[in-house]
Amino acid sequence: MISVHIENGAVSLRRAAVPRPKPGSALIRLRTGGICNTDIELLRGYYGFRGRPGHEFVGEVVGPANSAWLGKRVVGEINLSCGACEWCARGLGRHCPARTVLGIVRHPGAFAEFLTLPESNLHEVPRQVPDEHAVFTEPIAAACEILDQTRIGKGSDVAVLGDGKLGLLVAQVLACHGARVRLYGHHPEKLRIAARAGCETTASGKLPPSRFDFTVEATGTADGLGSAISMTRPRGTVIMKTTVHEPVLLNTAQAVVNEITLVGSRCGRFEPALRLLSSKRLRLDEMITAQYALEQAPEAFARAQEKGALKVLIRPGA
Amino acid sequence: MISVHIENGAVSLRRAAVPRPKPGSALIRLRTGGICNTDIELLRGYYGFRGRPGHEFVGEVVGPANSAWLGKRVVGEINLSCGACEWCARGLGRHCPARTVLGIVRHPGAFAEFLTLPESNLHEVPRQVPDEHAVFTEPIAAACEILDQTRIGKGSDVAVLGDGKLGLLVAQVLACHGARVRLYGHHPEKLRIAARAGCETTASGKLPPSRFDFTVEATGTADGLGSAISMTRPRGTVIMKTTVHEPVLLNTAQAVVNEITLVGSRCGRFEPALRLLSSKRLRLDEMITAQYALEQAPEAFARAQEKGALKVLIRPGA
Repeated sequence: MISVHIENGAVSLRRAAVPRPKPGSALIRLRTGGICNTDIELLRGYYGFRGRPGHEFVGEVVGPANSAWLGKRVVGEINLSCGACEWCARGLGRHCPARTVLGIVRHPGAFAEFLTLPESNLHEVPRQVPDEHAVFTEPIAAACEILDQTRIGKGSDVAVLGDGKLGLLVAQVLACHGARVRLYGHHPEKLRIAARAGCETTASGKLPPSRFDFTVEATGTADGLGSAISMTRPRGTVIMKTTVHEPVLLNTAQAVVNEITLVGSRCGRFEPALRLLSSKRLRLDEMITAQYALEQAPEAFARAQEKGALKVLIRPGA
Repeated sequence: MISVHIENGAVSLRRAAVPRPKPGSALIRLRTGGICNTDIELLRGYYGFRGRPGHEFVGEVVGPANSAWLGKRVVGEINLSCGACEWCARGLGRHCPARTVLGIVRHPGAFAEFLTLPESNLHEVPRQVPDEHAVFTEPIAAACEILDQTRIGKGSDVAVLGDGKLGLLVAQVLACHGARVRLYGHHPEKLRIAARAGCETTASGKLPPSRFDFTVEATGTADGLGSAISMTRPRGTVIMKTTVHEPVLLNTAQAVVNEITLVGSRCGRFEPALRLLSSKRLRLDEMITAQYALEQAPEAFARAQEKGALKVLIRPGA
């Protein structure tokens, strides 16, 4: 099969054997994959990664022959947990210390004609959700995770910092939840997507001090967290979505004196994401910058790294 | 009256006029004051401070003549709030943007024969609490604040990092609350106080990774927060008590990936602190390193800065 390979900053295509699913796992034929900022960071050397990337996907189960999932169109949770530890027992396999992670940590990714995942990771995609929306399930789940972790209510004043892919999804998810969302960014065309989704937007560089009850930091930069703390009211909450490799220089005294809570936030459950996708309330078509064939993966990665790019999709046989 | 003055890193004594309380404020004769690490930081230039320090005190109300508080032995909350804003309406005058702070921000401190405070800031000290315990009310309230902000329960596994004054009080308060507390520090004689108060203690430099549900960072150093994050389990909580002037270099990715929550924590309500003091369950006598007369304030500040010192008290006419 055709497979995408990342090594030493370069994206290449390889011929690889179709993977054989372990007992309890399914063989999945890729229908559509999405390039995430994490994939780009893997390409740049994050985690010392070398191998097959890809964790945003929608596919069809094609094996094993006796699988109850056979023929179903699925998305899959990316953390492969041990199923036996305390975290797994609590339904938090996303934090299982023994976990591998699809396309990120010791499990070959989705950017190939076929991939494998435990059947327990799979979720069937509702019929009314097209592939090019379903492929957003994983990042939408990461946005929904904020609602699992905090008390953002209907009418809560929320700032979202950063108009990249994740910032736009977070802004839309929170607006659908009923929060009053203001998205801060630098790209008028991206801010317009959020505006059409019912968010207020600000393109200027000046951020208001101590104004918001909740601020979501999704800039993807090391500077974002300090800005987020400054924008948040005393006793307010900053949700940390950015993972940067380098240590961040932070004025922690401001967070202590104002008793601000900083919540680290990563992957989320797929159920609320799929419900939201079924509702058709998110503006996703406008977030798709380009679609490439699997064989054009190097070009797809190059496009995804261009200034202003949002989601770039990869489709076998496209 | 005799008053303590801080300027350019030096502590001096001055003659000053007895302050005249504004309407609604009381004139208080100092009985005992306590030197806090914040006072030492003010001396070193934190906040660009110059003036009369002191915010830990117990005193007697001596005016105005028609005050309902006359003759009462009192402690006082240190934030002087406007009483009119949204924060004050919510009972959170500690975050009032217009606040002044006793001995810290634009209100002369307690290290003098007399001080003034709004009567609404005062709490009568229960008869069974001696002055040398009552003077701990403010830092005990700061420790109790953690229980107002988090869900630490009876039996929760809590690490406290730092065996200074605040770390020792936090460890004792949380142990009284019923948590299983382990105090990490470097001073065997300080750790013994916590051990006698029912805490586990560890004097070694090696900290266990990802072990605690809750970690209180009270080291007073810039390095403490990173250690606290590393010691805390995925989805756990770090309580940030340290305020350092300089920016802190922090591996925020670890907090994001492990979905750790960081809670900034500062001043607290006096009521639970006074209840705890009345219960006599805290070991405070052992935390008093030395007592000085008000006229010996320079010596008292020098002693408070010596290695291994805990609380140093100042008493007029002592």
